[in-house]
Amino acid sequence: MTAGTTTEQGSDVREAVHAAARRARVASRTLALLTTAQKNEALHAAADALLAAADTVLAANAEDLLAAQSAGTADSLLDRLRLTKSRIDGIASGLRQVAGLADPVGEVVRGSTLPNGLEIRQLRVPLGVVGMVYEARPNVTVDAFGLALKSGNAALLRGSSSAAHSNAALVEVLRAALTGLGIPADAVQLLPSADRSSVTHLIQARGLVDVVIPRGGAGLISAVVRDATVPTIETGTGNCHVYVHSAADLEMAEAVLINAKTRRPSVCNAAETVLIDAAVAETAVPRLTEALRGAGVTIHGDLPGLVPATDTDWGEEYLTLDIALKVVDDLDAAVEHINTWGTGHTEAIVTADLAAARAFSARVDAAAVMVNASTAFTDGEQFGFGAEIGISTQKLHARGPMALPELTSTKWIVWGDGQIRPV
Amino acid sequence: MTAGTTTEQGSDVREAVHAAARRARVASRTLALLTTAQKNEALHAAADALLAAADTVLAANAEDLLAAQSAGTADSLLDRLRLTKSRIDGIASGLRQVAGLADPVGEVVRGSTLPNGLEIRQLRVPLGVVGMVYEARPNVTVDAFGLALKSGNAALLRGSSSAAHSNAALVEVLRAALTGLGIPADAVQLLPSADRSSVTHLIQARGLVDVVIPRGGAGLISAVVRDATVPTIETGTGNCHVYVHSAADLEMAEAVLINAKTRRPSVCNAAETVLIDAAVAETAVPRLTEALRGAGVTIHGDLPGLVPATDTDWGEEYLTLDIALKVVDDLDAAVEHINTWGTGHTEAIVTADLAAARAFSARVDAAAVMVNASTAFTDGEQFGFGAEIGISTQKLHARGPMALPELTSTKWIVWGDGQIRPV
Repeated sequence: MTAGTTTEQGSDVREAVHAAARRARVASRTLALLTTAQKNEALHAAADALLAAADTVLAANAEDLLAAQSAGTADSLLDRLRLTKSRIDGIASGLRQVAGLADPVGEVVRGSTLPNGLEIRQLRVPLGVVGMVYEARPNVTVDAFGLALKSGNAALLRGSSSAAHSNAALVEVLRAALTGLGIPADAVQLLPSADRSSVTHLIQARGLVDVVIPRGGAGLISAVVRDATVPTIETGTGNCHVYVHSAADLEMAEAVLINAKTRRPSVCNAAETVLIDAAVAETAVPRLTEALRGAGVTIHGDLPGLVPATDTDWGEEYLTLDIALKVVDDLDAAVEHINTWGTGHTEAIVTADLAAARAFSARVDAAAVMVNASTAFTDGEQFGFGAEIGISTQKLHARGPMALPELTSTKWIVWGDGQIRPV
Repeated sequence: MTAGTTTEQGSDVREAVHAAARRARVASRTLALLTTAQKNEALHAAADALLAAADTVLAANAEDLLAAQSAGTADSLLDRLRLTKSRIDGIASGLRQVAGLADPVGEVVRGSTLPNGLEIRQLRVPLGVVGMVYEARPNVTVDAFGLALKSGNAALLRGSSSAAHSNAALVEVLRAALTGLGIPADAVQLLPSADRSSVTHLIQARGLVDVVIPRGGAGLISAVVRDATVPTIETGTGNCHVYVHSAADLEMAEAVLINAKTRRPSVCNAAETVLIDAAVAETAVPRLTEALRGAGVTIHGDLPGLVPATDTDWGEEYLTLDIALKVVDDLDAAVEHINTWGTGHTEAIVTADLAAARAFSARVDAAAVMVNASTAFTDGEQFGFGAEIGISTQKLHARGPMALPELTSTKWIVWGDGQIRPV
């Protein structure tokens, strides 16, 4: 009986997810044709509506917080879940900021006139239906909606069950704002989060969903990537390195390393390993270990006085005030270590030597390479995109910080006057 | 015992595929750093070597042909498998043509100087290790090698078992040519084809292989896409439509339709359905059905005198001298039909009306839209790319004809002088 019931519930969840995806597809046909002015008007209307409904949203958030507290959730997670009047202001401002960004849809990427007179153009078009799977923070619900709408896509949002009330309240406000402007409310839909299977049904809704972007811990991301039949974009895992080259200015190296490690240890662009060139190890190791310890960092490595390191440390994304330290023979060894253990996110070199900077940039296999700069700069806002939907660590479609153009596909449009192709 | 033996063989095949992928990864590090001149020299050397080894290659091909004939293979398939001196000349010319194409690697896609002085550039870089799964034609082996090499990638080729001897001979020639120039021979490797499981191991070698591109029938492509954990690019299925609008010049419509249907019925850009606007049906239906019949085409539809059509016909990629015909109420109905039944490959409208042309181009969801031109133009050569590795019908990474730039990813390179990010 229990098994039967579970299967039945599973099948209900599947049908609910597929029905939502079909409604999203219908809505996406309209969204793709909205003008930039219409989309911007909708983003401002949604921002206004969020401010007006702040009390309702906060009441829903209080329910989630109460349930999380009862379940003994850690304070740091409660803080990620918590909304305040000021955070809602920030979320609404985010929507207005997206309204101010350039619309990627319709951009002509390339084109030419063929010898037979055919005029061909490759235009950016929306992807269609974009699925997002994410954890606690309710602000992602609104951010994802805003970026999806501006790029002409319908969003299927699968937030965490711990934020279910908050997300439901937010999405209700957004949908009402769209309806008020005659835009299909199904531009944004929240998928059921009580049952984990909704994630599986979303990532296997091939043909109904055009892409799924997971945002969250390494476990979530690898599960999504493993089980998905819908195309996915892997985001976020960052085992980032700082390599202190033999020609490094050690004062600069110290500043870059401390910033990369300690600015926000829990984010994906934080440094997790420092590689020190053997040629400068005698002075660099004491100086950098002292600076790291002074900043409260625990150092793992195979030098005396460090917490003994194993291969696990080289592959680890600590996301805490821990770092692995290794002395490497030369640039070749640094590149080899990084290409073996890195996750292809961000790798930094500190050097005054031009040839070393060029060789490291060319040979390290990563979304971003920093020469004499902190790994913390790999970020959509920092790169000047004005927004970020995640940082891709895969090579297909998008690599590095993703913003509006990364939420588009392309279409070739060919105009002629009756051309036929010779046999 | 049998089961045990099979598993053991399966595990051997898995290890063989993974070992090849690891060798390809090592080779790819070198390939990524080759200059354009080095890559072009290698392509010409490979072309020379193929011509020099023509007799050996033809002897191997004769073995495949003999085995295929004994197995009762159809003449059309034998022709696809057959190599001749003249076809080898053509294959070698293809390599020289790729040498003449622009090198996509290193192209700066975008860049800027940030307010804090950081100089950021997004460059094209090779994908790394590219897997290809394909059927009979041995020329694909050399074409794929050439495009992969020019874009700095290592190629893992899984051809069909029916072409095993031909492919082995070709790859041996290519590898020897590379070795002669000091380029890693593992830039091109042939995977075992005797056991179907090598396809599965290739498409599940996540982390070892960066992308797999299947080329072949719908069954192969959907199996690859379904079982892959490595990112894939779906290619080729084309249920293409020609819509004869109420404002169509019927002479142009007839020429476009006959070319789209009959030029080469077996290719993915051939038309499979003609939609005729009700406003012109009275004259267009008799004229176009007569022209189609005159060209030897069997017409399926729900009008009297046609082979009765079911929903299967609307969704069918015949790839033969068959076509489905439907009268639609108006442009809305044509777009709705296409977006319901199309495969997102190429859709054509014939019309003299500008508003209709714009609306159809904007609303049809496909890799390519033809206005007053044959669907047969969706092709890398025709678009001026000089080569084609396949036609993507998915929306992520590449859509439409794929050539060299589509075999690249990107990398952000950021140069600074010690910048750190404020908290």
